[in-house]
Amino acid sequence: MSKHLTKRAEDYSKWYNELVVKADLAENSAVRGCMVIKPYGFAIWEKMQAELDRMFKETGHQNAYFPLFVPKSLFEAEEKNAEGFAKECAVVTHYRLQNDPNREGKLRVDPEAKLEEELVVRPTSEAIIWNTYKGWIQSYRDLPLLINQWANVVRWEMRTRLFLRTAEFLWQEGHTAHATKSEAVVEAKQMQDVYAEFAENFMAMPVIKGVKSDSERFAGAEDTYTIEALMQDGKALQAGTSHFLGQNFAEAFDVKFTSKEGKQEYVWATSWGVSTRLIGGLIMTHSDDKGLVLPPKLAPIQVVIVPIYKGEEQLEAISKKVDEIVKELRKKGISVKFDNRDTFRPGAKFAEYELKGVPVRIAIGNRDLENGTLEIARRDTFEKQTVNQNDAVVVIEHLLEEIQNNLFQKAIDYRKENTTVVDDFAAFKKAIKRGGFVSAHWDGTEETEDRIKEYTKATIRCIPNDAKEEVGACVLTGKPSTKRVLFAKAY
Amino acid sequence: MSKHLTKRAEDYSKWYNELVVKADLAENSAVRGCMVIKPYGFAIWEKMQAELDRMFKETGHQNAYFPLFVPKSLFEAEEKNAEGFAKECAVVTHYRLQNDPNREGKLRVDPEAKLEEELVVRPTSEAIIWNTYKGWIQSYRDLPLLINQWANVVRWEMRTRLFLRTAEFLWQEGHTAHATKSEAVVEAKQMQDVYAEFAENFMAMPVIKGVKSDSERFAGAEDTYTIEALMQDGKALQAGTSHFLGQNFAEAFDVKFTSKEGKQEYVWATSWGVSTRLIGGLIMTHSDDKGLVLPPKLAPIQVVIVPIYKGEEQLEAISKKVDEIVKELRKKGISVKFDNRDTFRPGAKFAEYELKGVPVRIAIGNRDLENGTLEIARRDTFEKQTVNQNDAVVVIEHLLEEIQNNLFQKAIDYRKENTTVVDDFAAFKKAIKRGGFVSAHWDGTEETEDRIKEYTKATIRCIPNDAKEEVGACVLTGKPSTKRVLFAKAY
Repeated sequence: MSKHLTKRAEDYSKWYNELVVKADLAENSAVRGCMVIKPYGFAIWEKMQAELDRMFKETGHQNAYFPLFVPKSLFEAEEKNAEGFAKECAVVTHYRLQNDPNREGKLRVDPEAKLEEELVVRPTSEAIIWNTYKGWIQSYRDLPLLINQWANVVRWEMRTRLFLRTAEFLWQEGHTAHATKSEAVVEAKQMQDVYAEFAENFMAMPVIKGVKSDSERFAGAEDTYTIEALMQDGKALQAGTSHFLGQNFAEAFDVKFTSKEGKQEYVWATSWGVSTRLIGGLIMTHSDDKGLVLPPKLAPIQVVIVPIYKGEEQLEAISKKVDEIVKELRKKGISVKFDNRDTFRPGAKFAEYELKGVPVRIAIGNRDLENGTLEIARRDTFEKQTVNQNDAVVVIEHLLEEIQNNLFQKAIDYRKENTTVVDDFAAFKKAIKRGGFVSAHWDGTEETEDRIKEYTKATIRCIPNDAKEEVGACVLTGKPSTKRVLFAKAY
Repeated sequence: MSKHLTKRAEDYSKWYNELVVKADLAENSAVRGCMVIKPYGFAIWEKMQAELDRMFKETGHQNAYFPLFVPKSLFEAEEKNAEGFAKECAVVTHYRLQNDPNREGKLRVDPEAKLEEELVVRPTSEAIIWNTYKGWIQSYRDLPLLINQWANVVRWEMRTRLFLRTAEFLWQEGHTAHATKSEAVVEAKQMQDVYAEFAENFMAMPVIKGVKSDSERFAGAEDTYTIEALMQDGKALQAGTSHFLGQNFAEAFDVKFTSKEGKQEYVWATSWGVSTRLIGGLIMTHSDDKGLVLPPKLAPIQVVIVPIYKGEEQLEAISKKVDEIVKELRKKGISVKFDNRDTFRPGAKFAEYELKGVPVRIAIGNRDLENGTLEIARRDTFEKQTVNQNDAVVVIEHLLEEIQNNLFQKAIDYRKENTTVVDDFAAFKKAIKRGGFVSAHWDGTEETEDRIKEYTKATIRCIPNDAKEEVGACVLTGKPSTKRVLFAKAY
């Protein structure tokens, strides 16, 4: 199978598109820009959801569910937010179909069933949620309000790519309300930390935490905290954002509370989200020319066992031994699949699991039974070892950890090699052309940002949280700057 | 709080509507017919999802995700299905908003951004899924295909009620494809069993398993298997359905497979779903005039602990003891909340948790500390007992089981008392008027079914799976009948 996969060096973009489909993760649907997430791809999303949901709950958040539709009048209430999303909104205008009198067996929109007010399919839920919060918040006792929702959203993007940019995508969106500004800022930063921890510890995808420049901010936010990852082709991926929304939505929807001192004040807000886009990031961080490479912590199948046999009898003897091993592995919480299909040969199975990125593959044949051994191969390095069956569980447990760590370390190394510090524009252009993160001084103006984008297609990914204060000169204008920011071309 | 709750005997419908809001389960939103599911209500849904999802996976199903939108041309492909849902479809016609030139700061639909083909917001996903399956199924080796999706769907209902009937609701929909008719029928029946098991073992809601009459069948199905529950007001609730779809969708979307014998054949299909409507059923099965009553297996909080204290010092001593008990309970997998808020008095807390249906309440005061005791109250019977702190965990574990069983038994008893076997139409009308299930002979015609509905508002809920073959005469027409069917007024 994998021999039909385009090589990354040939055409990275084509490699990605092919891999997503060949590894059975997702495919395009009959609806422009909308994807079908196939069971194997969805299993990765379920693993991501489970970990994130746990982290959200551990930080005090509860899940809820708000309507898919936003009445236009609510949608437009927070003007910047509305302006930011208006151009990519799917709009429901009618609520009924009827038989088409001109075409037997066909339907048409019933012109009589026009909605009085159009409904926007949510591109994000601040408007509908803050309109709801108005009824929930009266006093400081009602705060903080810490709510998350898992949902589908729709943004009518013109150019779409599976997982990375689709018209409909799945995500979670947290929406919190606070009595004070500082508490809201702490919350927004906390969720950035949660996202970074998830990206690094589970996805094995290193990220830079930082804040967005004014022009890259979320529409309606005061500050957008982001995590930025570097893909294998040298392009950055915005992997998650957490917004400090100030009092913008509270003002737009008139959400006030009575403070401890008895004063009426507007509520402070945050919102934060990650989406199925993360699956795209996961793929592009680790995978290779043979196919998907998955970090064990998010792999739907962590270990696959392939029997090497001739005839029923051998298969039966092998299966008996395998059943024991499977039981032991499951006891340790390891997800394992025994592929005993007789419609495929071992070689084809090996190729399939390589393509699907299963971290550990076990092969066990007749001779292994005699010797009490089995062969363990790891997906990340292709290393193989023959181990005693009695040691298998311990070896595998250890190996899964090692693979997880190795993938993270490789990605860290890659990012290090592909982060360039530059001090003049010639070097800047060269570095951007080569790809990767470019750390440079910037004079803080939108104008300079725009010109750099025009010249190089690079954008400011973020002003890193750990950027040092230093005296510098803008890489384009030479004007004074106190901090380096991170540029890159981005998805 | 509960004193403001309407009594069931006064106005059952009002009681329900008030309870849903007062117990913080859900509320109406700014979008006509769409609800906001509040955190406490959503926590119940999460518990339901977790159990159902586990049961689906144990029966070999995998989750996936298909688009929210269905292009009109696909939607209309299976004519009966299309006809069944056409009248309640939200339709997306445009993909962009623009500034309204006539109203500063307002938006309007951009007339230039009209879709070439309208998109239906899925009322159910057979069409989009079978259009996708066409690409997935070539050979008998690709079958069975056993897929489920958790999603939101939209049906533009005219009269809506929180949980029971809303324009948007959350559900799961399973869609399976099989090589043979018998395999598909077995699957559809299996999922009916899964639903019944979930309803009875987790929701403590007894259900009758049966098959729908022709007129009550899902649009596009050959047979609809249903589970029907009886609510406290004597009305039936269709709680879950599983459909044998024959080859209708395979034909509409031209999904064929090569059989083992090398022949091209149409695929056989099932679909099955339960929704947030189950929460409505849960409420109406168990709750009382004091508020919600939740079966322990689905209660977000199974045990609440309320301290009875005067002053910081007492609270501190009580908290120390409570922390130990909480730890022990959590070790047993019991979800417990210690409500140490000092802004509410114990009486107010008691009322709140009664209203919210927490199965077990513990009160612990200063004298309890001295005596090594605590007071345990159960929500279902309001019985209280004082137990030794050392026995608390064992007593509570046992009590949770007992409450679960008691709720189920009560519901079974209620259904027994409210199921009437009748043999003439006078008795039928009387029984329907009184409420509950009415078991009667029916001549099998749609005409009779319609007339009975016209006279009494009762519909055939199902032909029970365990209906005995017997010689009988239709309760309306006197024509021969071989089986009793179950009638009721329904939600």
